[in-house]
Amino acid sequence: MIGRYFDYNSTTPLDPRVCQVITESMDIYGNPSSTHGSGQKARLAIHSARQHIAALLHGEPEELYITSGGSESNNWLLKGYLSQWAGTPVHVITSVIEHPSVKETLRYWRDAGGGEITYIPVDAEGFISPQAVMDAIRPDTKLISIMLANNETGAIQPVQEIARIAGSRGIFTHTDAVQAVGKMPIHVRELGVDSLSFSIHKLYGPKGIGGLYLQSGYKLDPLLHGGGQEQGLRSGTENVLSLLGAAEACRVAMLDMERSQVKLLWCKRLLVEKLRAIAPGLKINGSLDSDRTLANTVNLCIPGIRGEALAAYLDHRYGIAVSVGSACSSNHQKKLSYVLQEMGLDEADIRSSLRISMGKFTDEMDIHYLLESIESALAHFNQLMPT
Amino acid sequence: MIGRYFDYNSTTPLDPRVCQVITESMDIYGNPSSTHGSGQKARLAIHSARQHIAALLHGEPEELYITSGGSESNNWLLKGYLSQWAGTPVHVITSVIEHPSVKETLRYWRDAGGGEITYIPVDAEGFISPQAVMDAIRPDTKLISIMLANNETGAIQPVQEIARIAGSRGIFTHTDAVQAVGKMPIHVRELGVDSLSFSIHKLYGPKGIGGLYLQSGYKLDPLLHGGGQEQGLRSGTENVLSLLGAAEACRVAMLDMERSQVKLLWCKRLLVEKLRAIAPGLKINGSLDSDRTLANTVNLCIPGIRGEALAAYLDHRYGIAVSVGSACSSNHQKKLSYVLQEMGLDEADIRSSLRISMGKFTDEMDIHYLLESIESALAHFNQLMPT
Repeated sequence: MIGRYFDYNSTTPLDPRVCQVITESMDIYGNPSSTHGSGQKARLAIHSARQHIAALLHGEPEELYITSGGSESNNWLLKGYLSQWAGTPVHVITSVIEHPSVKETLRYWRDAGGGEITYIPVDAEGFISPQAVMDAIRPDTKLISIMLANNETGAIQPVQEIARIAGSRGIFTHTDAVQAVGKMPIHVRELGVDSLSFSIHKLYGPKGIGGLYLQSGYKLDPLLHGGGQEQGLRSGTENVLSLLGAAEACRVAMLDMERSQVKLLWCKRLLVEKLRAIAPGLKINGSLDSDRTLANTVNLCIPGIRGEALAAYLDHRYGIAVSVGSACSSNHQKKLSYVLQEMGLDEADIRSSLRISMGKFTDEMDIHYLLESIESALAHFNQLMPT
Repeated sequence: MIGRYFDYNSTTPLDPRVCQVITESMDIYGNPSSTHGSGQKARLAIHSARQHIAALLHGEPEELYITSGGSESNNWLLKGYLSQWAGTPVHVITSVIEHPSVKETLRYWRDAGGGEITYIPVDAEGFISPQAVMDAIRPDTKLISIMLANNETGAIQPVQEIARIAGSRGIFTHTDAVQAVGKMPIHVRELGVDSLSFSIHKLYGPKGIGGLYLQSGYKLDPLLHGGGQEQGLRSGTENVLSLLGAAEACRVAMLDMERSQVKLLWCKRLLVEKLRAIAPGLKINGSLDSDRTLANTVNLCIPGIRGEALAAYLDHRYGIAVSVGSACSSNHQKKLSYVLQEMGLDEADIRSSLRISMGKFTDEMDIHYLLESIESALAHFNQLMPT
């Protein structure tokens, strides 16, 4: 049941309008590279789809490269951009809280002799300081990669300021905006980044598709060589059906975003306020500042209660989906959240933490159901505890 | 109209059963990496899907890595396997008729200092000789990559024999089987290759999904780093919906293949026989040997008639989709087919060539319609010609 799903940062259900577009587009089967009618029908369809996707970023369709998702976009940008210095070690700046697709890609690059990485720390609320980025810049710094919004805490990073600093020194700025696109307005030009990656399944569209915005003027080394699709930079027959679904997801995101943000902010306040009464000692991991955090995300700690146990109980007893840490890492479920660690939480608090991420299908009723369930769960756990 | 579509090697329409599975699976929205109910529902669904895909190859699900398609699979295998010798030039054997995703990837590898490539030629019918492969082997040969079936001519290459030769010398064998999987029975173990790539949109499934079979015991360097999905080797949230569609495509391919092959062989014979009467001077590019070519593919040359003009006329006048060369290359439509060039055809014959590729929705009526349309087209073209 959608109303019991509080794990929207992990992935989102399809919007019904996206379902409809996918269902209605199943007969567009041509290969967009074919010159005949079937091919041209597909080519026209994806041409129009690109406009909708670019519009959500306020970018140009020519600056948009469709990929299989956020992970490919991050891998491609980082490897593709840095490959121009292969053999000459250079310097890269990133943060300690990046998604594994940035972290692991850069680690791979470094271990292959690519160069050095400076990891910018976060403060107790999970924010990166632009000053720290500025201080880390060296003459051989070639790229700065800082995420726009954090998946675990919802902290929105000062990417605009970082991009300004980098730009004035001629350094390329990439932002992993997978958790931001669809949840907050994005203007790539105002943001000032040179590239930005996003994933459609975070905004009520299909999985397996995403994109890379790359400011015109840059040419990346392809990650996927071959037939020369995506302006010669990303080969492979276009994922027509998912692309049309993605376009619809972007179109409805434009329509729904503002109203959804207002509602989610309201839900978040309600949730936190009532939780403070239900769970004495409740701590919020990160900030509640609505200007600096995603409206949909609450990361909290109930001291003395294991987050994993609480999540499992809510799941089995009430059908509620919440998460401990991130679902992005398939094999590291048992590891402690590195994001919370970097924010300075001790192990006990991290193990007592829970991420609640809401979405546009979440309403007040759902919050009340969640609150009642948490209240019952806490009563249950307290009963089990030695007095 | 499906009946007028003769470009199945470029891509295929969705099978109605695949459409149904996709439609019915749109509510499976969880992230397979999540531990809660929604996540586990998705995880179970893709677990079962992998069995169907592996079954079509007669391989094990553990040897199957899902990718965004054939191009990614080829890129990943070649770069990932060859990266272990980075810095030490080695030798690779491939053929002159590989798909761009193999050709361009190897060219990139070579240009980056990876080593040397020997290109095995084809004979006049488009076949590679295992003896030529054997003769090309050097002490530093590390990889042989030969396609299983050619997209333009349907020539099935002696991959089994090549794999046997390579295996006896400890050389890794990869085959790009994108045009073969779904069109002919595949037994990865009998074939003897170490890896095999395939694409689901060539067998009535969705675009944007494919896979790499990799024999157990091998570990590739990932192309996509990150959360560690696909046994740690291919990161990115699983493309659940397309994966379920892919599984259904593989399941129905098992059911339909034999009957479809018999019918297509019959259609092909009818087509060629009647065409010989309609188009005097008709030449078949490649072989008609049913044991050595795909049942669905006919590549032909009608001397004196421009293939491009004939294809365009059939498209506009009769709604018929055929192709000149391959649709795999998005930016090279005007280039001469390198496959036909390598078979020794002269430019005039290549420019007069046409690829007709049929599929399981093709029936006798469609062949008659195609024949009548070609006959009318030829009459039209002959009228225009100076006598």
